[in-house]
Amino acid sequence: MKKINWYPPIILGLLALLVITFGALVASRASLGPTQHFSEDGSRETFEWKLVTTWPKNFPGLGSAPERFAKKVEAMSAGRLKIKVYGAGELVPAMGVFGAVSDGAAQMGHGAAYYWKGKIPAAQFFTAVPFGLNAQEMNGWLHHGGGLELWEEIYAPFDLIPMAGGSTGVQMAGWFNKQINSVEDLKGLKMRIPGIGGEVLNRAGGTAVTIPGGELYTALQTGVIDATEWVGPFNDLAFGFHQIADYYYYPGWHEPGSILEFIVNKTAFEKLPPDLQEIVRTAARDANQDMLDEYTARNNRALKELVEKHGVRLKRLPAEVIAHLQKINDQIMEETAARDPQFARVYKAFKEFEREVIPYHQISEEAYYQARALKDSE
Amino acid sequence: MKKINWYPPIILGLLALLVITFGALVASRASLGPTQHFSEDGSRETFEWKLVTTWPKNFPGLGSAPERFAKKVEAMSAGRLKIKVYGAGELVPAMGVFGAVSDGAAQMGHGAAYYWKGKIPAAQFFTAVPFGLNAQEMNGWLHHGGGLELWEEIYAPFDLIPMAGGSTGVQMAGWFNKQINSVEDLKGLKMRIPGIGGEVLNRAGGTAVTIPGGELYTALQTGVIDATEWVGPFNDLAFGFHQIADYYYYPGWHEPGSILEFIVNKTAFEKLPPDLQEIVRTAARDANQDMLDEYTARNNRALKELVEKHGVRLKRLPAEVIAHLQKINDQIMEETAARDPQFARVYKAFKEFEREVIPYHQISEEAYYQARALKDSE
Repeated sequence: MKKINWYPPIILGLLALLVITFGALVASRASLGPTQHFSEDGSRETFEWKLVTTWPKNFPGLGSAPERFAKKVEAMSAGRLKIKVYGAGELVPAMGVFGAVSDGAAQMGHGAAYYWKGKIPAAQFFTAVPFGLNAQEMNGWLHHGGGLELWEEIYAPFDLIPMAGGSTGVQMAGWFNKQINSVEDLKGLKMRIPGIGGEVLNRAGGTAVTIPGGELYTALQTGVIDATEWVGPFNDLAFGFHQIADYYYYPGWHEPGSILEFIVNKTAFEKLPPDLQEIVRTAARDANQDMLDEYTARNNRALKELVEKHGVRLKRLPAEVIAHLQKINDQIMEETAARDPQFARVYKAFKEFEREVIPYHQISEEAYYQARALKDSE
Repeated sequence: MKKINWYPPIILGLLALLVITFGALVASRASLGPTQHFSEDGSRETFEWKLVTTWPKNFPGLGSAPERFAKKVEAMSAGRLKIKVYGAGELVPAMGVFGAVSDGAAQMGHGAAYYWKGKIPAAQFFTAVPFGLNAQEMNGWLHHGGGLELWEEIYAPFDLIPMAGGSTGVQMAGWFNKQINSVEDLKGLKMRIPGIGGEVLNRAGGTAVTIPGGELYTALQTGVIDATEWVGPFNDLAFGFHQIADYYYYPGWHEPGSILEFIVNKTAFEKLPPDLQEIVRTAARDANQDMLDEYTARNNRALKELVEKHGVRLKRLPAEVIAHLQKINDQIMEETAARDPQFARVYKAFKEFEREVIPYHQISEEAYYQARALKDSE
């Protein structure tokens, strides 16, 4: 038998093994690459979004919601969704927020639905209507009463998804340079008051004007207006209205529980993997609650300072005036509903929910406030 | 020169290369393995948690919060944190929840802090105290008034992190087999009422008894008790108390805005990467709001059915009775504070916040409820 030289076969075998092993290494590296960026469901992709707001950057209360939201989203997504917040005018003007998010120039916005009433009269129901639902009731309607579904339907043609984005609680009726003792005192009153509240004032004989927040102080100081509403003690104190004159300060009727809004460009939202979509929705819900909690905690201290330190005279509107404003408001709501079928449809749903919640709150929340006030009456 | 046989060195070289390449493959696999489970910050590791509750599984309202929470966490974490919810008695009895989570037998629990008053009298402030804060105010105190920090401090020795886990709003005073027209009518009244409210009833001449929810129906039916409180119309209707007798149904004073709790085992929580920690916190906040929204939307419909369909007689407790109960309550609170320094410290903080919020709510929320009720008065 011829002696076989075993070396070449061994070399060939080793070479083959080397090729296989090296191939496995390359394949392994190839699979390692994407694993760093995508999980099985693609969720390791990163996104950078812009969020434009109708408030000055870091505006107390209202402006802190988008900041909190962006931080939460970044933390929950471990940096996969980074959201940069822009104050009003930084990227688009305050009133350009709806258009910018609808067009996709920004992926998100934060503001208030009633700012878009020129385009969508029914949008006002998703912020506040005079003598309507308070904050707790609005949240009940939106999240367990069909309100959010209506809102989504109305914003869908604009490629927008709305989400509740915070609440101020009951807003104050505002600052008046004279006492309001009767319906007569509203006649000739020139007041900054937006939305349906402004229409009510007009029909009561006053003149509602629209003035951006930044120009309000000067407008009051120069006597361009006799009165203004803004938000409530926490924001009003910071604005310094009390420094201008000896005002009368009245509790509210026109914005009983304003809900702010997040709007998300639908096309952008649908590009997110499901986990990031859920993170966006949940962070919005968190910010929605946190704002009301902050106003609840801070308003009273500010009110106390206004009254005790700055001598602001806190008064109540007479029942006669309230009832009169309410009657006018009902007329305006009915007339708008008669002109605008979408407004009519939301108004109907809103009123149905009012009937679902108001009688219970009379015997629960309201009765409780009264019971608690009996403290020193025995 | 001796001819060199090149084969052995080639073989040795190839073998060396094979070892290196194979080694690289092993190293790459080793790094690939964890990469599937950990991102740069370790966040791809998966966790399975148990959440034990003090409610029957899927109990309406109260029991839906942990279910919603678990679903949200799983969706936001893309399945990296799976939480299985156990009803009362499935893993531990209702009253064993605190201990099980403290010991780490379960990573989370859902219940109410006042259940643990035997161990921690001060825990009651984090659910509800009679004539205390309502739901909106509790949330303000916890999240922007220092309340949560106190709660965390008090639970820390038990290796527990507390988070607000929903609210029922104002609870009803309950179901009575006779009308309460005076303080005298409370004498001899045998009533199921837990917590400080029960102590108040005892001192007013009644007898407070503790009966688990599941035995309440029978206790009323057999006349063991004359009266019971439970939650509010939404839950009370489902319980069917109205089927037993012609009861009088009274609005509440003893639990003005009960906050439920999530408890998290601190050691387990700290093992989570930061993104999952934030997901847990935010999902809890979401569930906290969602429960109040659901009760707000559903209570009135249930109340209407109770009154209109089942003839339940809805009454108000006379002011004299409310004021009397309030006076007794203040005495009990002061006495407990005198015995228990921790209770005293939380009571002080709670009262300070009450002074920070109650006067504003009188002129905002309460005044608004009154203004809205003037609708048909003109």
